Amino acid sequence: MITAHGYAAHSPTSELVPFSFERREPGPHDVQFEVLYCGICHSDLHQARNDWTGSIYPMVPGHEVVGVVTKVGAQVTKVKVGDHAGVGCMVDSCRTCAPCRKDLEQYCAEGATYTYNGRERGNAQPTYGGYSDVMVCDEHFVVHIPKSLDLRATAPLLCAGITTYSPLRHWKVGPGQKVGVIGLGGLGHMGVKFAKALGAQVVMITTSPSKGEDARRLGADEVLVSTDPAAMKRHAKTFDFLLNTIPNGHDLNVYARLLAVDGAMVMVGALMALEPPLMGLSLIGGRHTIAGSSIGGMAETQEMIDFCAEHGIVSDVEVIPIQKVNEAYGRLLKNDVKYRFVIDLASLKA
Amino acid sequence: MITAHGYAAHSPTSELVPFSFERREPGPHDVQFEVLYCGICHSDLHQARNDWTGSIYPMVPGHEVVGVVTKVGAQVTKVKVGDHAGVGCMVDSCRTCAPCRKDLEQYCAEGATYTYNGRERGNAQPTYGGYSDVMVCDEHFVVHIPKSLDLRATAPLLCAGITTYSPLRHWKVGPGQKVGVIGLGGLGHMGVKFAKALGAQVVMITTSPSKGEDARRLGADEVLVSTDPAAMKRHAKTFDFLLNTIPNGHDLNVYARLLAVDGAMVMVGALMALEPPLMGLSLIGGRHTIAGSSIGGMAETQEMIDFCAEHGIVSDVEVIPIQKVNEAYGRLLKNDVKYRFVIDLASLKA
Repeated sequence: MITAHGYAAHSPTSELVPFSFERREPGPHDVQFEVLYCGICHSDLHQARNDWTGSIYPMVPGHEVVGVVTKVGAQVTKVKVGDHAGVGCMVDSCRTCAPCRKDLEQYCAEGATYTYNGRERGNAQPTYGGYSDVMVCDEHFVVHIPKSLDLRATAPLLCAGITTYSPLRHWKVGPGQKVGVIGLGGLGHMGVKFAKALGAQVVMITTSPSKGEDARRLGADEVLVSTDPAAMKRHAKTFDFLLNTIPNGHDLNVYARLLAVDGAMVMVGALMALEPPLMGLSLIGGRHTIAGSSIGGMAETQEMIDFCAEHGIVSDVEVIPIQKVNEAYGRLLKNDVKYRFVIDLASLKA
Repeated sequence: MITAHGYAAHSPTSELVPFSFERREPGPHDVQFEVLYCGICHSDLHQARNDWTGSIYPMVPGHEVVGVVTKVGAQVTKVKVGDHAGVGCMVDSCRTCAPCRKDLEQYCAEGATYTYNGRERGNAQPTYGGYSDVMVCDEHFVVHIPKSLDLRATAPLLCAGITTYSPLRHWKVGPGQKVGVIGLGGLGHMGVKFAKALGAQVVMITTSPSKGEDARRLGADEVLVSTDPAAMKRHAKTFDFLLNTIPNGHDLNVYARLLAVDGAMVMVGALMALEPPLMGLSLIGGRHTIAGSSIGGMAETQEMIDFCAEHGIVSDVEVIPIQKVNEAYGRLLKNDVKYRFVIDLASLKA
């Protein structure tokens, strides 16, 4: 076994503290890598605090994990020692169900095995995430990261990146389309970058007029303040596609009114009840689609990383030492980050 | 002007009574036809009783109108005198907006002109529907009905038929797919017939076990009683497509759980608030789509009629004299019809 060092939550109410634990020695299909950086996703906070119930403690969060490969099993072909590599939200799945066979491991019929706060297939051992110094993972769930990408700013691509890239590709967003990205946070700022790189006309839709300048810097052609009724009316029925990154319950009807005939709005952030309720007319009135999308499969995650390398796309990040993780959680609750905290794991040795 | 005779509601609370009114003489693009049959749609009742507000009185309802052509304008090419013809929910639209140019007149940017309870373009005269002895309509909004179709049972195709046919075609329902039709009424019974004719495996989803036998007679391969939790669990995550014809607010999450990964549920009946609220997870958990669809464009309505002639599909109807229309409305409120009332307009002369 390998002794790993990281930070863990021991209960829903306790702060994260230093924690040592064991990882398996890499098997023939496994990749071992030294974790250099790990992004902080809002879902880390939700799970550490048991917001979604069923949390497993001690919990080492982190599913935006990047580093340098230190050991590979005999059968591994995807990466070699010295390569940059990453792990996202999943470390395993059944590999045999219909979704898995279609490279949609995130929708595995048996449920994908999550990188942390999950249990390993077969032995039910808890999985531990990337707030730690070393990862071991089957190569199928490892992505290769070209060295041209700034590794610190690449970490959030493994969750925030793929979560926004996948629906933009699946719904074939591209030139000639008017695309709105709703909400400017960790997900939204990646959505703007991707939609722009895919050639669409991009409108950042936000409740905060103050975010306008930043949205334009990120690539938005226009900013629409959703609390301005006149502006919302001007844009009514004009959007081909809306990427909805709002993480809380909200009124879908307000945004459905922005959709052109046959327009689609895809939800990537809010898992909870969407209130006030959706009106049937909001869909029927223009053959509108409201859909959801969860991260992306492993093949598409690699495609996304390669797309980022080709287009020079990374996340906007604020790098912190792991000793500041609890403070970062507090700031996350106030949306006080542009746009993703990333832990520098070198700080573990400090 | 042509003097037309029919039945009208004079207020939200009054019964329909005999009423005479005027229609325009047919212009060069108009078709005049003697109305032989007119279906009763649940929306006739809603509008007569001002359930959706803004009703125009006196109101002559009816948008499932079929008969025999008696006069055509000089430019008309679609039908000739003696042909069977029909008019559905629309009699006009702007003809120039993007949706109209794509044969989606039902989503006209200026709003389509409805067959009754609307106002004519240009002169704002109220439109009067098919509970009457004569119709005059621009040929663009007239469909030709092959004489092989039983005209009485064809009337409901103009609304209930196209409303279910259009989404099944748009979402490419066909062989190899498992399709559920939710709700067995005027819309649902047509949905079952069409889905079966398109080659899908068809499951009728209903709250009423008693409807099972009838659903099988209509073409369903299987019946799923939605109030049976064990049966719902057995069918979870297996449907490629759900046609949701429920006319009232209801819990979408219950049906979203039936969808396979990438499955879609299309709403055609409920315009109102869908409560309890939709959960984001119901969409995100399987890249599910919930969409809406409104009737169909005129080109597709003709295609649907021709499809019906080819496959021998008509509605299941109960034919009534117009003197029983108020009684029929009462029975409609209790879902006491299999599956569509059709008025025999010959009764007007009785």
